[in-house]
Amino acid sequence: MQYPEPIAKLIESFMKLPGIGQKTAARLAFFCLDMDEEAVLAFADALIRSKRDLHQCAICGNITESDPCNICSDNTRDKSIILVVENPRDIMSMEKIREYHGLYHVLNGVLSPMEGTGPEDLNIASLIKRLQDETVKEIIIATNATAEGEATAMYLSRLIKPAGIKVTRLAYGLAVGSDIEYADEMTLFRAIDGRREL
Amino acid sequence: MQYPEPIAKLIESFMKLPGIGQKTAARLAFFCLDMDEEAVLAFADALIRSKRDLHQCAICGNITESDPCNICSDNTRDKSIILVVENPRDIMSMEKIREYHGLYHVLNGVLSPMEGTGPEDLNIASLIKRLQDETVKEIIIATNATAEGEATAMYLSRLIKPAGIKVTRLAYGLAVGSDIEYADEMTLFRAIDGRREL
Repeated sequence: MQYPEPIAKLIESFMKLPGIGQKTAARLAFFCLDMDEEAVLAFADALIRSKRDLHQCAICGNITESDPCNICSDNTRDKSIILVVENPRDIMSMEKIREYHGLYHVLNGVLSPMEGTGPEDLNIASLIKRLQDETVKEIIIATNATAEGEATAMYLSRLIKPAGIKVTRLAYGLAVGSDIEYADEMTLFRAIDGRREL
Repeated sequence: MQYPEPIAKLIESFMKLPGIGQKTAARLAFFCLDMDEEAVLAFADALIRSKRDLHQCAICGNITESDPCNICSDNTRDKSIILVVENPRDIMSMEKIREYHGLYHVLNGVLSPMEGTGPEDLNIASLIKRLQDETVKEIIIATNATAEGEATAMYLSRLIKPAGIKVTRLAYGLAVGSDIEYADEMTLFRAIDGRREL
């Protein structure tokens, strides 16, 4: 005996999502059965609309309904700084702190020889193009603090610096609220290395 | 700045699912953006069809496309035994072992004074009705091994036994492959209590 076909298909769809195995998928699918019809239709509609109405901004690669995106077309933002991130979610994290008022550029990934991701698979050509067109003075590289993120930062830095543009990287160090006792060795090393005068 | 509306709605929908918080919802929503269109449309379609085409079997309460469900309408099954479960997923678990060939009854929950679930909120009336109509000889109560599952089993047993029908409960004991060292006290107590001659 198998699940009725519609629920089997729904379980299959949930299993395609990252970190969701068969048991969780079944739990989620049965939960959807118990949701009111309106909520389920809204869910289905959001899936369809997300796929149909959202595109990458032609300038920065951010996810957007309009093109160029709200940030690229906002004249109050500082067009002399571009902060380079791995994916659109990182832009949201940056925007939440309301401290950065420049532009962004989404790489859509990082260099990863292990996964076969080379420079040509990332939005690097469009970044270089922006440097020629615009009056950019600084590039802040905000890739993740992983080996791949670091390698990508180094690669971009070597590519951009010769053009006479300042290239910076987010600071490494102790996370606010963290204990030195539990910090890993590399983080402590970077925290000492990057110490600042009080 | 906020997410573009379609993705915000999609994140909101994912957050309605059990065990999925804001960060996971955002990760899943962005993952859907990267899926190919066919898979996303199939996902949306499965959601809509699950809600539209699936109903509760009028006899046993199982989730089904046809009514009565495949199990209730299967003449090869033993109609003298009904196994009572909390929800339709439990039926799937039972069917997987291919050892039980009787009928089922889905309570759609358990008695829980804490959550305000009383006998009238469960499919108990329809179970009692089946006992009058059919030639049922045994009821196997397969509610979960929780306090609520146990209370529900006791309640059903007191309700059904006076009608002269045999009422049984799944065995308690050590899970196969488990260590006695790590078994909790109640399980060990039940395992000794329910010991069988070799």
